[in-house]
Amino acid sequence: MEIFLYELVGHDVTRPFSPHCWKARMALRHKGLEYTSLPVPFTKVRHVEDGFDRTVPVLRHGKDVVQDSFAIAEYLETTYPDRPSLFGGEGGRAMARFVESWSHVHIRSFVVSAALMDIYSLLDEVDKEHFRRTREAFFGMRLEDVVNRDPARLDEFSRSLEPMRLTLKRQPFLNGKSSGFADYIVFGLFQWLRITSSVRPLAPDDSVSEWFERCLDLFDGEGRKITAA
Amino acid sequence: MEIFLYELVGHDVTRPFSPHCWKARMALRHKGLEYTSLPVPFTKVRHVEDGFDRTVPVLRHGKDVVQDSFAIAEYLETTYPDRPSLFGGEGGRAMARFVESWSHVHIRSFVVSAALMDIYSLLDEVDKEHFRRTREAFFGMRLEDVVNRDPARLDEFSRSLEPMRLTLKRQPFLNGKSSGFADYIVFGLFQWLRITSSVRPLAPDDSVSEWFERCLDLFDGEGRKITAA
Repeated sequence: MEIFLYELVGHDVTRPFSPHCWKARMALRHKGLEYTSLPVPFTKVRHVEDGFDRTVPVLRHGKDVVQDSFAIAEYLETTYPDRPSLFGGEGGRAMARFVESWSHVHIRSFVVSAALMDIYSLLDEVDKEHFRRTREAFFGMRLEDVVNRDPARLDEFSRSLEPMRLTLKRQPFLNGKSSGFADYIVFGLFQWLRITSSVRPLAPDDSVSEWFERCLDLFDGEGRKITAA
Repeated sequence: MEIFLYELVGHDVTRPFSPHCWKARMALRHKGLEYTSLPVPFTKVRHVEDGFDRTVPVLRHGKDVVQDSFAIAEYLETTYPDRPSLFGGEGGRAMARFVESWSHVHIRSFVVSAALMDIYSLLDEVDKEHFRRTREAFFGMRLEDVVNRDPARLDEFSRSLEPMRLTLKRQPFLNGKSSGFADYIVFGLFQWLRITSSVRPLAPDDSVSEWFERCLDLFDGEGRKITAA
């Protein structure tokens, strides 16, 4: 039964960039599943699966439609229990939520502040208008004013990764000896930055950079197939 | 086979306060195990089990001697696989390391800055001298100057807990529906503050405070048996 994954794109439909879509992609590849990517620009997201939801990724598998990257990972874990586990048990599933929350607070906010205009520049005109209108209402300021690439902001971001560095001293992945969905959660955010922006906040010999390179190598270089910005 | 747990104490040997010893205590209770607590002041730690190691907790179980709270949890998980799991699988064990690293960076450092002189004041004279000498060498300043209870520091600490609050919106414990070693890691640090200091950085209706109260209730109120400072 074919699997379809609706993924966010800008003008270039061959370069999906959404962090959440990358989480779902990596989860599918972790399970060894083939899928067909269905690219969707911002203003078409609400039409996906007859307006099933307002965000992507959305996964369609036969009659099943699943929205939200974590829900997709849980769906795949339940549907394909005999394939490599995404969570490594119930404890891992629960704590992946903590990793998700941590990355939301520290990494997502950084990528927004560093790359918002880069993301904007990748969109078609109609999506640019939509993106500017919705995001400026949310932030209460012009997109241009959200961007903050001050060295102090980059330093703050780097410091916020210290818990991850400490963990990587003990094990190559957040999931332990091999990668799991917790890794893909954080990977998705760094991949979002890599694809949309030339900002590179970490040195190549930072253990987080080295971990990211390991993630880019996974599944025949799934993440590396999309070139960096 | 009797289990002994060497635990750090100050002048009052009935009030173990070390965060790491509390992690081990909770792990033992989680497994439903009885144990005998062997209180050890700072200057006696190096004599534990013939100088086995320079830190407590140390667990003695028959011929087995295990040092370090995480190693104790792993030992108990391996030795008592049929009792309630501390990690909920391999993924949970790996990610508990991330929780440990996160709490080390954000919570341990806060408790030190808020409660260092409180901890000092609980010690016997000989331990006070040892504590001051070793910690002042480490910090490169007087103990008194390490203490920082400025409102800005308390705010910074509270903000650093945001990933935990986001997680607790979804589930009552870091470990999921029920508590696990990841919870005890964070609990140990808050319990350290609760027992040694009157500083209370969080409002009672903070979801982290509510989680801490749930942890204090566990195992017939194991944590609550020691009154707050």
